[in-house]
Amino acid sequence: MQNEKKTITPLSELGEFGLIKRLTKPFECKNSSTIKGVGDDCAIITSEGKQLVVTTDLLVEGIHFDLVYTPLAHLGYKSVAVNLSDVCAMGAIPTQITVSIAASAKFSVESLEQLYDGIRRACSRYDVDLVGGDTTSSMTGLVICITAIGQIPEGKASMRSGAKVGDLICVSGDLGGAYAGFQVLQREKEVFMVNPNSQPDLKKYDYVVDRQLKPEPRLDVVRKLMELGIQPHSMIDVSDGLSSEILHICDQSNCGAKIFESKIPIDAQTEMVAEELNLDATIFAMNGGEDYELLFTIDAADQSKIAQMLDYVTIIGYITEASEGCKLMGKASGCIDIVAQGWNAYKAD
Amino acid sequence: MQNEKKTITPLSELGEFGLIKRLTKPFECKNSSTIKGVGDDCAIITSEGKQLVVTTDLLVEGIHFDLVYTPLAHLGYKSVAVNLSDVCAMGAIPTQITVSIAASAKFSVESLEQLYDGIRRACSRYDVDLVGGDTTSSMTGLVICITAIGQIPEGKASMRSGAKVGDLICVSGDLGGAYAGFQVLQREKEVFMVNPNSQPDLKKYDYVVDRQLKPEPRLDVVRKLMELGIQPHSMIDVSDGLSSEILHICDQSNCGAKIFESKIPIDAQTEMVAEELNLDATIFAMNGGEDYELLFTIDAADQSKIAQMLDYVTIIGYITEASEGCKLMGKASGCIDIVAQGWNAYKAD
Repeated sequence: MQNEKKTITPLSELGEFGLIKRLTKPFECKNSSTIKGVGDDCAIITSEGKQLVVTTDLLVEGIHFDLVYTPLAHLGYKSVAVNLSDVCAMGAIPTQITVSIAASAKFSVESLEQLYDGIRRACSRYDVDLVGGDTTSSMTGLVICITAIGQIPEGKASMRSGAKVGDLICVSGDLGGAYAGFQVLQREKEVFMVNPNSQPDLKKYDYVVDRQLKPEPRLDVVRKLMELGIQPHSMIDVSDGLSSEILHICDQSNCGAKIFESKIPIDAQTEMVAEELNLDATIFAMNGGEDYELLFTIDAADQSKIAQMLDYVTIIGYITEASEGCKLMGKASGCIDIVAQGWNAYKAD
Repeated sequence: MQNEKKTITPLSELGEFGLIKRLTKPFECKNSSTIKGVGDDCAIITSEGKQLVVTTDLLVEGIHFDLVYTPLAHLGYKSVAVNLSDVCAMGAIPTQITVSIAASAKFSVESLEQLYDGIRRACSRYDVDLVGGDTTSSMTGLVICITAIGQIPEGKASMRSGAKVGDLICVSGDLGGAYAGFQVLQREKEVFMVNPNSQPDLKKYDYVVDRQLKPEPRLDVVRKLMELGIQPHSMIDVSDGLSSEILHICDQSNCGAKIFESKIPIDAQTEMVAEELNLDATIFAMNGGEDYELLFTIDAADQSKIAQMLDYVTIIGYITEASEGCKLMGKASGCIDIVAQGWNAYKAD
């Protein structure tokens, strides 16, 4: 893109310790719960009288991301975002992360700096401290493993297992966009493979491409729920698609669910991409995944409270007895069973 | 080894959720600080009024381990052990771990069960709970990322930065054995490559091979220090060799060090292997790494206390002014500067 000459420093020139120092230098710890960040055998944190939540995710080049169309800074940002999303899915406030990467010799110090720049921006935006990690080499490609820690007052975590019959099922934002963006990027990649000089015009797909490349954890929704005094009975983030997530809740809460297709929030751009591909946008929402929205259930008595945050969330159905199963009330097709078709990293295709 | 027919289940048969369920089923959470383990978006833990320490390590096939001579159960055990060693290096008691793995299609469900069996045995031995993780596929080989959490009373962590002039430098166990074991295994691998029917006789190398394949975190040393009321001024674990570790302490504590070569504890088998290779065992201790012993400094006034644990530790030198540098007092060669030659994952060789 830019014409300036870029410096390319091989990873071997700095060595492990030099590389860690250079990559983590732009980071500052800001949380009072961070006693000691990067630079010792462990980080030291305090819980400030709260409970802590811990989550971890491993992202592998060629499986979870494609560097042909994923800028490294976006990848760094997204890697943090998906972990913070898990913290949010407990109703907790994220406070610290550790970042481990394995990179092959095809990566330069400068390219890893781009990755860490994305990580830093996500940390900065969500007031999260980078407190540790590991940096090593790999035989091929890039692997990123992030662990995120968050705080929550004792007994306030929203687990998958707490849904009750009669609960309203709510979802934040809109669904299916990340998958629509993925489809657009895949299509552009194929064009690029045939003609490397092609200049993709992605303007009309900006929203869905952003949903795929730069998801945001819904910390705003968590904070708003706290502010309004709404304690979700159960909560999960939408990483594998609505089908998979509602089944997790029903399975762990031993209940059923009824979801109304007409209520599922879908953006116009998502609809447009689905149409271009002769597919149904509902399928993107149900089985696409990677939207990182929050799916949660609340006591029906909280309906008036949730009405104050309809900019953030949509009520899409309600929890039923387990014997009633997990159903989608179709717009045209009537009542159908919800089946998990979420992403299987092990499936050959 | 065994003649019974082994079942081989491809990873794709179970899918991600089925695989996680199967691998984590044999694990039980035992710590009172574990409120919620595997099975939700996050684990939930309490700190029970203590500070928490957090560390993470990423292990990559072909870089950190060689499956030609590393049984998967040993690898699982070692992956946990090296992380617990970092927790011990703060003077903390390990309580929880998360385990993330990426495995290519060459691995079967049964082979990953072996890996998790080793992980389970390490958890069981050190009373650590597995509380979360991620399981996914990779394009090639195996990647393991473990995060370990431990507890320590407020203000009691021993950091690298706390060494003071006059401190005694102590090290637990003996050094260089893991590197000697690595040399033996590499040699056997070369023999095996030439003649796959060769049956290696490793009996006379059992100690050093064990040091390489099955290191133990020195939680016993941490507990003994607590029991005797010894608060190390500084501490680090020996993962990259004594040279590298003492330089970390000197660098972060702004001091120098004098180490006596004659005092460095080296096992007879390590000496034997060094001799076979026409090398100096001191080099194994200084630059070999992977011993996972604890290197720490204590107030000289604690010498009588440390005398009660000479089964565990050896005093190998003392801390000096920074201006005096970091020196090894050689048995024959006189006083020489200590230079880090620890392992560089990025170095091509």
